Amino acid sequence: MSNATSFGTRLRDAIATTSPLCVGVDPSSALLSQWGLDDSAAGVEAMGRRVIEAVAGIAAAIKPQVAFFERHGALGLGALERVLDEARHAGILVVGDAKRGDIDSTMSAYGDAWLSEESPLRVDALTVTAYMGLGAMDAIFDQARAGGRGIFVVVASSNPEGRMLQEARTVDGDSVEESLLKELGGRNSAEVSAKSAAFGSLGAVVGATRSAGTLPLSDLHGPFLVPGVGAQGATPSDVGALFAGCAPHSVLVNASRSILSAGPGTREIRLAAETLANELQEALG
Amino acid sequence: MSNATSFGTRLRDAIATTSPLCVGVDPSSALLSQWGLDDSAAGVEAMGRRVIEAVAGIAAAIKPQVAFFERHGALGLGALERVLDEARHAGILVVGDAKRGDIDSTMSAYGDAWLSEESPLRVDALTVTAYMGLGAMDAIFDQARAGGRGIFVVVASSNPEGRMLQEARTVDGDSVEESLLKELGGRNSAEVSAKSAAFGSLGAVVGATRSAGTLPLSDLHGPFLVPGVGAQGATPSDVGALFAGCAPHSVLVNASRSILSAGPGTREIRLAAETLANELQEALG
Repeated sequence: MSNATSFGTRLRDAIATTSPLCVGVDPSSALLSQWGLDDSAAGVEAMGRRVIEAVAGIAAAIKPQVAFFERHGALGLGALERVLDEARHAGILVVGDAKRGDIDSTMSAYGDAWLSEESPLRVDALTVTAYMGLGAMDAIFDQARAGGRGIFVVVASSNPEGRMLQEARTVDGDSVEESLLKELGGRNSAEVSAKSAAFGSLGAVVGATRSAGTLPLSDLHGPFLVPGVGAQGATPSDVGALFAGCAPHSVLVNASRSILSAGPGTREIRLAAETLANELQEALG
Repeated sequence: MSNATSFGTRLRDAIATTSPLCVGVDPSSALLSQWGLDDSAAGVEAMGRRVIEAVAGIAAAIKPQVAFFERHGALGLGALERVLDEARHAGILVVGDAKRGDIDSTMSAYGDAWLSEESPLRVDALTVTAYMGLGAMDAIFDQARAGGRGIFVVVASSNPEGRMLQEARTVDGDSVEESLLKELGGRNSAEVSAKSAAFGSLGAVVGATRSAGTLPLSDLHGPFLVPGVGAQGATPSDVGALFAGCAPHSVLVNASRSILSAGPGTREIRLAAETLANELQEALG
């Protein structure tokens, strides 16, 4: 497994051959109703399958929001397992948006759940949070890299309520978000050197609503997962400006509501995805 | 549901009639092997059932670590659902240690999963993290209170890697952990006034390894969930000193490995739990 192609390389290739678009799969009660689907495990599975059918070949990845599957308990996770299986068959990358965050052996257990080749929940990359410190998460980082999978750590979220914590100053004088970028960047640099990769496998979630030039983004040497375009107000050109100095094909831009609300028709979803994918390709070069 | 007895009151009563002990249910691969159980959904379910049988009436609560169930995917969550059902029948409170952390409608979806009367995963209280800000989590706080359930926000974790972020200074001059305690305290004070409760339903996770007198703990006006006793080095008297100024029966002390490693025999687990429960009762008065 340690010879697996790195997630950084796999993501770069997927973005180069499709687009920087990632389509969120958020089967909320409101969207299921709009699509004429039951708010049940069968309903969330149907939405997931239809999104994959519509956007495979156009988007680099889908991003199932695990919370909306977890609402239906074990049956909901069973539905997610089948959606993930469908995505693997369709050849589209999957970012599991679970935002798990714990330490040591507990975090490794989440790694077993989401990043192990044997798990029915395995995804190409997992979102995590680091309130308890990145230093307590090295085991899951190692698990990810060993299997050619990735991690996206929430660094600078798109919502205003996150500013106070994320801009707090550590003893080093850096903000929390700068500090996380540097810590991740150091780990990515080591991987890039060892594997001659374009960028590392440890990514950062950075909201498109952040102002360009305020964060040392090019220090990450890894991929970005970017929420906040569309329903939250940022535009593709905002994203282009924000990530101007970063590596080619390292920016994966998520859109959920703005694509899904075009449904339930597969053709309409595909058209919305193609339009945004083209705008993102132009903006990100 | 808005007339449900508050979680703060339910926890106080449970601690008063049993003890401040919470027993962690951490079915790791190593512990399952030690107990002679398969590392499977059936194995994690068997461990959960045996812990409940052993500690009901002695501990105020159990705390299943969701990561160890999630390792087995949908089947593992099915096992957790059955363990939760068993706990309800045994009349022991359950803290779901899921450390979910997201914003707005996504966080509400986690609330639907873990705090809704209709969900097979419902627990009495859920652990969460707040990297994206407490202000984006008011919907799940409301969900919890409306159903007489609680939330424990990770504030000051027991691991050293968490210090940098948790001690970072916000624009107000407070540390992140002080700031979270105050924000939670304000919400709890409002609930205490409205319901004449002993303390509110929004708790804080504070590691027993923290030094007494360094955090304004009595500002919380809510319950504490305390890891770090036993395997992580802190003692019951450390806990007594740390929470000296807090409300009676507001401190729930978790122990996992130190109790579970006494197994697999129910009698041995019960004896280990009783010994620690007595020490905690003496230390916390």
